[in-house]
Amino acid sequence: MATNAAPHLAAAFRDQPVLITGGLGFIGSNLARRLADLGARVTAIDSLIPEYGGKRFNLAGYEERVRINIADVRDEYSMDHLVRGQAFIFNLAGQVSHLDSMHNPYTDLDINCRSQLSILEACRKHNPSVRLVYSGTRQIYGRPRYLPVDEQHPVDPVDVNGVNKVAGEWYHIVYQRAYGLRATSLRLTNTYGPRMRVVDARQTFLGIWLRRLLQGDEILVFGDGRQRRDFTYVDDAVEALLRAATCEAAVGAIYNLGGEEVISLQALAELLIELQGSGRYRLVPFPAEQKAIDIGDYFGSYARAKADLGWQPRVGLREGLTHTLAYYAAHGHEYWP
Amino acid sequence: MATNAAPHLAAAFRDQPVLITGGLGFIGSNLARRLADLGARVTAIDSLIPEYGGKRFNLAGYEERVRINIADVRDEYSMDHLVRGQAFIFNLAGQVSHLDSMHNPYTDLDINCRSQLSILEACRKHNPSVRLVYSGTRQIYGRPRYLPVDEQHPVDPVDVNGVNKVAGEWYHIVYQRAYGLRATSLRLTNTYGPRMRVVDARQTFLGIWLRRLLQGDEILVFGDGRQRRDFTYVDDAVEALLRAATCEAAVGAIYNLGGEEVISLQALAELLIELQGSGRYRLVPFPAEQKAIDIGDYFGSYARAKADLGWQPRVGLREGLTHTLAYYAAHGHEYWP
Repeated sequence: MATNAAPHLAAAFRDQPVLITGGLGFIGSNLARRLADLGARVTAIDSLIPEYGGKRFNLAGYEERVRINIADVRDEYSMDHLVRGQAFIFNLAGQVSHLDSMHNPYTDLDINCRSQLSILEACRKHNPSVRLVYSGTRQIYGRPRYLPVDEQHPVDPVDVNGVNKVAGEWYHIVYQRAYGLRATSLRLTNTYGPRMRVVDARQTFLGIWLRRLLQGDEILVFGDGRQRRDFTYVDDAVEALLRAATCEAAVGAIYNLGGEEVISLQALAELLIELQGSGRYRLVPFPAEQKAIDIGDYFGSYARAKADLGWQPRVGLREGLTHTLAYYAAHGHEYWP
Repeated sequence: MATNAAPHLAAAFRDQPVLITGGLGFIGSNLARRLADLGARVTAIDSLIPEYGGKRFNLAGYEERVRINIADVRDEYSMDHLVRGQAFIFNLAGQVSHLDSMHNPYTDLDINCRSQLSILEACRKHNPSVRLVYSGTRQIYGRPRYLPVDEQHPVDPVDVNGVNKVAGEWYHIVYQRAYGLRATSLRLTNTYGPRMRVVDARQTFLGIWLRRLLQGDEILVFGDGRQRRDFTYVDDAVEALLRAATCEAAVGAIYNLGGEEVISLQALAELLIELQGSGRYRLVPFPAEQKAIDIGDYFGSYARAKADLGWQPRVGLREGLTHTLAYYAAHGHEYWP
């Protein structure tokens, strides 16, 4: 696999205590594995709520090298204890479903806002020199007013999840400015790869596409299939998280991630079928509640991340999807009933 | 007193059931009085938390014409009941202290975020055709990047209160877009006038200035006194709230309020002393925790409100401050120990 590992990362993380919230989830587990490979002493926190993305299998083979701590980020007392003594915290736990946030806005508020405050309060009180990286989302931009979307683009979320993700990110920035906490936010966009949640569309539409393709079902593409998106392979996202955590200029800053390629959803379905060597897709009308929060075309500019972090995506869509399909061909039975 | 009352307002509100959250507070009570004068059937909700702005005295003389319901907006069940059957809801209850939000971010979250969600959920379920107006704040813009600040200015709050006020506003917009709730937000700026909280600087610095001036104490101006601000007299703010509630084009929209005059804090202190005919002020260094969240110069553009609502401020600063000083000269003993 192509890699763009910065040479300083091994030195920065070797023997360092690192906490990952959402550490059994998609991005968190990939990050935990990478950090363990770099020699870090990783604690992965996860609540393993069945509907969310956490799975013990995501750390298969790393059980001896990553300390797993089952806890919910809403549990203020546990968090208060767990942040102590960490050199780095990657704050990835979140409620990520847009539709769930509309059905149960209070749960989304508790996880994406209140928990962020309690993590930040715990750091302020007990570990003020920790280096914190928060995983934000491009979803907060809402319907793009121009493309590619850079970090100056107005924030205009279309659902409760988007509003709360804005708040969660900005708490980090406020705590940086007011208390000097060394926090950074990355705004991720359509991250995909091994260990992503594929059982349904709660995390991303691409998950359910992969599952349906692998199970011989039709991929359902909403609308006319012309909506364009960019994608980040999870190894690239992990690389960005690590670089952000070790870059002094990134303290207090917010960075978009992005992909080299922009592709329509229809073309993406066709590419998946080509790579898989079989399969079908069909254009279907948007379900009403999906339509209400759809944002049309989106792709972002990662120029700032490139300038400050030296980051750019290295894994092309074709290569990344090939790895992803191979992973679920081998391990899909762990990810769906 | 100058007035810019639109003639349609009496027709729009006569005999209409109207709910005001924070109805015993500064702006809420002035609004309640005006609505009662227009013939509306007003229910004023307030928690009367001692540290906040609510006071029974604010509705003195209107006790028979406004129904007072003591309840906290965090009380989901009471709110669920109280929103039913209302034609209009003016959603003004909030935790407004920037410093309190840093000392107790959870309380700020509960009042400014969770309560807003429960009001909106109650409206969605039990009163989906209600007309809602939310009181936002210019404080969410943070340090201005250009002046005057219009509604396109990036939102960049400097404290937890600012973040949560953004979220509270945007929930209203999200519920408008997703569910068709007829909500509008006004971003208020330095509203002042009779019934404002003057016991300390929790609501606005101008409150404590008025009190100190009237009690013969020195006004303390932080920094070099050159920071410029605009101000809205409360009758003008009330007029904007009423116009927003009765303007179809305002559904789903956000409007800045503002003032005609922009004045430095030092000049404002001098004006107050001139109007009062006595008093002193002194420039003092910023307290550290105030400095951390100070935003420098601010004044806003209300061009959009003028275009859509036909609103503009009518009461000049000199006239408004004269009325305010007269009010506290007569009633100050109700407002401080």
